[in-house]
Amino acid sequence: MTHTPIRLGMVGGGKGAMIGEVHRIAARLDNRFALVAGALSSTPERNAESAAACGIPPERSYDDFAGMARAEAARPDGIEAVAICTPNHLHFPAARAFLEAGIPVICDKPMTSTLEDARALATIAEAAGVPFVLTHNYSAYPQLRLAREMVARGDLGSIRLVQVEYAQDWLTEDSGSKQAAWRVDPARAGAGGSIGDIGTHAYQLARFVSGMLPERLAADLTSFVPGRRVDDNAQVMLRYASGAKGALWCSQVAPGTENGLKLRVYGDRGGLEWAHETPETLWFTPFGQPAQKLRRGAQTMAGSRVPPGHPEGYLEGFANLYAEAAEVIRAYQAGTPLQTLLPGIRDGVEGLEFIDACLRSARADSAWVEVHHG
Amino acid sequence: MTHTPIRLGMVGGGKGAMIGEVHRIAARLDNRFALVAGALSSTPERNAESAAACGIPPERSYDDFAGMARAEAARPDGIEAVAICTPNHLHFPAARAFLEAGIPVICDKPMTSTLEDARALATIAEAAGVPFVLTHNYSAYPQLRLAREMVARGDLGSIRLVQVEYAQDWLTEDSGSKQAAWRVDPARAGAGGSIGDIGTHAYQLARFVSGMLPERLAADLTSFVPGRRVDDNAQVMLRYASGAKGALWCSQVAPGTENGLKLRVYGDRGGLEWAHETPETLWFTPFGQPAQKLRRGAQTMAGSRVPPGHPEGYLEGFANLYAEAAEVIRAYQAGTPLQTLLPGIRDGVEGLEFIDACLRSARADSAWVEVHHG
Amino acid sequence: MTHTPIRLGMVGGGKGAMIGEVHRIAARLDNRFALVAGALSSTPERNAESAAACGIPPERSYDDFAGMARAEAARPDGIEAVAICTPNHLHFPAARAFLEAGIPVICDKPMTSTLEDARALATIAEAAGVPFVLTHNYSAYPQLRLAREMVARGDLGSIRLVQVEYAQDWLTEDSGSKQAAWRVDPARAGAGGSIGDIGTHAYQLARFVSGMLPERLAADLTSFVPGRRVDDNAQVMLRYASGAKGALWCSQVAPGTENGLKLRVYGDRGGLEWAHETPETLWFTPFGQPAQKLRRGAQTMAGSRVPPGHPEGYLEGFANLYAEAAEVIRAYQAGTPLQTLLPGIRDGVEGLEFIDACLRSARADSAWVEVHHG
Amino acid sequence: MTHTPIRLGMVGGGKGAMIGEVHRIAARLDNRFALVAGALSSTPERNAESAAACGIPPERSYDDFAGMARAEAARPDGIEAVAICTPNHLHFPAARAFLEAGIPVICDKPMTSTLEDARALATIAEAAGVPFVLTHNYSAYPQLRLAREMVARGDLGSIRLVQVEYAQDWLTEDSGSKQAAWRVDPARAGAGGSIGDIGTHAYQLARFVSGMLPERLAADLTSFVPGRRVDDNAQVMLRYASGAKGALWCSQVAPGTENGLKLRVYGDRGGLEWAHETPETLWFTPFGQPAQKLRRGAQTMAGSRVPPGHPEGYLEGFANLYAEAAEVIRAYQAGTPLQTLLPGIRDGVEGLEFIDACLRSARADSAWVEVHHG
Repeated sequence: MTHTPIRLGMVGGGKGAMIGEVHRIAARLDNRFALVAGALSSTPERNAESAAACGIPPERSYDDFAGMARAEAARPDGIEAVAICTPNHLHFPAARAFLEAGIPVICDKPMTSTLEDARALATIAEAAGVPFVLTHNYSAYPQLRLAREMVARGDLGSIRLVQVEYAQDWLTEDSGSKQAAWRVDPARAGAGGSIGDIGTHAYQLARFVSGMLPERLAADLTSFVPGRRVDDNAQVMLRYASGAKGALWCSQVAPGTENGLKLRVYGDRGGLEWAHETPETLWFTPFGQPAQKLRRGAQTMAGSRVPPGHPEGYLEGFANLYAEAAEVIRAYQAGTPLQTLLPGIRDGVEGLEFIDACLRSARADSAWVEVHHG
Repeated sequence: MTHTPIRLGMVGGGKGAMIGEVHRIAARLDNRFALVAGALSSTPERNAESAAACGIPPERSYDDFAGMARAEAARPDGIEAVAICTPNHLHFPAARAFLEAGIPVICDKPMTSTLEDARALATIAEAAGVPFVLTHNYSAYPQLRLAREMVARGDLGSIRLVQVEYAQDWLTEDSGSKQAAWRVDPARAGAGGSIGDIGTHAYQLARFVSGMLPERLAADLTSFVPGRRVDDNAQVMLRYASGAKGALWCSQVAPGTENGLKLRVYGDRGGLEWAHETPETLWFTPFGQPAQKLRRGAQTMAGSRVPPGHPEGYLEGFANLYAEAAEVIRAYQAGTPLQTLLPGIRDGVEGLEFIDACLRSARADSAWVEVHHG
Repeated sequence: MTHTPIRLGMVGGGKGAMIGEVHRIAARLDNRFALVAGALSSTPERNAESAAACGIPPERSYDDFAGMARAEAARPDGIEAVAICTPNHLHFPAARAFLEAGIPVICDKPMTSTLEDARALATIAEAAGVPFVLTHNYSAYPQLRLAREMVARGDLGSIRLVQVEYAQDWLTEDSGSKQAAWRVDPARAGAGGSIGDIGTHAYQLARFVSGMLPERLAADLTSFVPGRRVDDNAQVMLRYASGAKGALWCSQVAPGTENGLKLRVYGDRGGLEWAHETPETLWFTPFGQPAQKLRRGAQTMAGSRVPPGHPEGYLEGFANLYAEAAEVIRAYQAGTPLQTLLPGIRDGVEGLEFIDACLRSARADSAWVEVHHG
Repeated sequence: MTHTPIRLGMVGGGKGAMIGEVHRIAARLDNRFALVAGALSSTPERNAESAAACGIPPERSYDDFAGMARAEAARPDGIEAVAICTPNHLHFPAARAFLEAGIPVICDKPMTSTLEDARALATIAEAAGVPFVLTHNYSAYPQLRLAREMVARGDLGSIRLVQVEYAQDWLTEDSGSKQAAWRVDPARAGAGGSIGDIGTHAYQLARFVSGMLPERLAADLTSFVPGRRVDDNAQVMLRYASGAKGALWCSQVAPGTENGLKLRVYGDRGGLEWAHETPETLWFTPFGQPAQKLRRGAQTMAGSRVPPGHPEGYLEGFANLYAEAAEVIRAYQAGTPLQTLLPGIRDGVEGLEFIDACLRSARADSAWVEVHHG
């Protein structure tokens, strides 16, 4: 089979943006995408510089996403997909522009900066019938796909507990970095701080693996760093309709943690544990039996490029999303839509519903509130 | 210095009781105590059998603690201390009997089965002026002593977060064992299940290391196993007067966990992490610096019997309590009271205040409640 | 059953000797022994002091082992067993004295300071028919007993490889401590340094678990610390009659290691791994299947005092030897000898055969030499 | 700066070859190379298929490397570098063809299948003055670069011990896979089996970090699997001119190991430990101080794409080689040769000297032999 990469555009992610480079590496790792157009930075000068550095020809380096969507939609060799890596508040208008132009979107999380926008985007995307992928990248790790499958087929019995946490330390102090600046600015990040930036990852992962969304939650949000206007730590308790319980902790002020996402799920017949520090290992503990160490490449080859013991990590996991997105986009072009486990619009809405519920709870002195679904 | 062991009595802890044997091993490990009297079991036959197995002479094997307290107090060679290892509801009357007889008490946790009893016992103990040690054994691990010291001297800066958990799996199903039976019976264990049995350990440890007690908490208690009358899982959020936040999770239904006590404390300048699986290691992570692995025997020799790399564990930690209790008892006899870090009456009252607050919160649909101190 | 402890004497192990205290704790941990006599130290003053500290009455504190053996053998309440904890060169005469007096011996390793002594002691012990236990304590860890059993029943298939190592760092520099002094003095330790002190442990463990003794070895012994007269590091290659191969590394100059004994055994159908840092875990990896974490107390309850997750360690392992020795001694007294897995005279001879072969190889520029058995 | 990828050709590495895909991913991960020509497979049909799958135009898909070298050297847009991923015996003729055509070479290890070829290639490469990179990829992990630097600046003091091992299990049985077939065929792999395939990696890494080559070695090579014509396990002892000692173990028949490369280096003032399972952590243990956990991205940012806690692994490490090779190639084209730490011709010759010494030792019943350098 001759290989032709998908023509990819990118919005945001210019010089100095960590996540933009992650998207670019992930897109090219499996050679399924070629970056050909972009509106990478917000000032003309940096924009030109960023485009050159990425090998984007000047005529396809655009000042803004609106112009880019129009121009690319009009080209016979226009982009076949766009990656959106801007600060959160621009996700909605940018995604809308491309979806309405019929161009599949691969969008960073959280999907939007408000729940209203998320729901509006869902309506738009569903009406357009165009693929939309949200980069909750952790759910593309092979061992978490396996975890989901094991829960679904009953290996753990009936689920009782979902314990998830995501701890970082990079906002322990006011760093003043560009990365940090927009993430702690409600105007650009949305009203959620750590709950939006990493809490949504934890929430999506818990849902992805357990198959369950909570009915109610109580959230204690804190801004520890003086002057910070968004939460940098959140303790959240979760209740599920089934009677299951959960806890979610996210923090960006826990010194010594790095990118500490960890999920534990317990049923009446067994447990699972996964930690991002060792992403290729899934621990399975059937009640009363020895723990089993399930390894990428040994017990699960899908989503792997190299054999067990040749560590794959964050970029490969992210690339799994892109590889699967490529399948979805080609299938869409062929008129034969594909069902996959890729996170999408629903995950995006659920993420904002989570943020919204946390904020409502926090405003009510961390009382229990309903999580609105729909 | 010639060595003379302290004459020890024991109430409860007869045949088939795991914790009784733990107390006996801990008491003799450092050769500071000799077990000479007891009321070990509740039926005469098993009582005699238990006494014989422990080398207690028949004339000092008693039917009940009341008689034992009277008789031993009257002997010139009577016991100099008593270990109380009964189900929780008997801690109070037994401890009272010995304290009132002027005999120092080493008592299992939780201290009593109700907060009223705990406060009453505090009054009695303080009036009697007799040593009382509560076996929150984890706080006697050298690395947790070190942790406390590091927090106290400011190595972590100002404390922001206290995350503590204690997960077990042995009550995942109804086992019908003797160990299990009284722990899930409110008449003998008290109204708290997992929160009393292991939650109080977690709570005491968090307090011991952080130096802080929470002002308020919200607790979601669950009985997952059908028919169980006490909680077997608890999610608890904690708020401290300083603005610090915390979370406590305890569970006895998490398959694959064993005796998973874990504490993490984060300040604005560093973090600490300790897990019971590797009790001889304390992780210290000054913000922005490499994590340091602080090892028993290498960085802390106090509380050690053998050099680093010769694992000491649960029994040695428990024995540390007994060794320190021996010092306290000898000092008490000498009329020169000793200040130590041993858990005692205050920890006992605080533990019941914690249980009480959890139960009040649970009755109010897990609302936030004050933790009453005093 | 009424409990009567075995009357124990001790030779060596007085003040300042780490291993003497280990023996005493191990002996009393399960309450099977009572220390009643001793010749603990080599000077009268320290001897009296050591005896008092151990609760040994002055009239049973002896100047030397010979007098002690005579006197105790003559008493109606004389010792029923003796623990020998002296520097190596005294093991032989002391053990001989007690064995010839009909008193069972629990002796530190290596068994003697020369192979000739070892063989002579074997002859004496076998003639006397008196129990002799050599404290290769690691082989009493429950997970290593399990490992042996798994190899023996073929879980690993045919054994191909035995990789064992024992690394410490306490002799990295000349410390001048009492512990160190005799261990690096050939007159007291024997001609082997690290190979005698820890290499024999590694060798015995490899043999215990694999069930095999090597036919030939090549040993590269080094004294890294200037002026040191015995080896502080040894690289040894092993060949077995079956065609299996092995490697043994022991070192006392590897900074950062503590008491790093580690064993890996591989067959044509599976592998086992055990490390002293986590003595309660045995890893079993059947070829092509997930690794299984076999835990003390969960998969093996024998040799346990407390449930899984309540760490037992070095002292408990050592105590397992004493507990089993108590069974052997009582059976011996009853005239019904007991077969156990306790290390004994044969292990002692084999250890000296190992040292001897290493020294012969080293003298021949680390050439391959036969390991003499017999 | 506008970005122009280097035009890359590839020899070998067609369909079904794991390492070919690794090279391709590594080459494109940082967008420094574009694959434009190849002689990927040995049969015309698979060759065409492989080329198409890689996006190589048919006119630049060649039947053999000789024709490819000629044709590409003649094109104005000819390749600027070639990656050689064939079985070992073809490395020499292929590398020679491209070097003589003035085309930089990135070659898989071991460099050749005989020591004679290796030395001949060294002569050719040095005469040609064309860059040659050998893909000892592990030496491009940031934490191993850091390790080398720490040894070089004396953080460990004077080096005493180098313990290296590389254990796999994929050849435990005769698998019959294509990967396995040529690696156990002396005609294609060379006379070394595991020592060539993975032993050379271990040897190069030990040398890279310690800065030392051994003077003498003794090697015990074994073919455990019946009928196998090359070694699948090797125990090797190493002696250095400085008096330092070492051990190297490599195995492809150790069930449960995956790709278990591990290096430990000990000096008189500290130790280092690194294991491939956790490639982003380097343990540093200054003697008498707590162990420090040095993390990629935290203590070393060079060679990183994402922050600590976002695991980078095997492919990123491999890509580090390619990224650095890109610098070298551009500098070569500019006539300003660059000194780097990239493994090259010298490492290749040393690898074959190692294999040669192991084979000579094995033929002499594992006697000590000189390692010929030069």
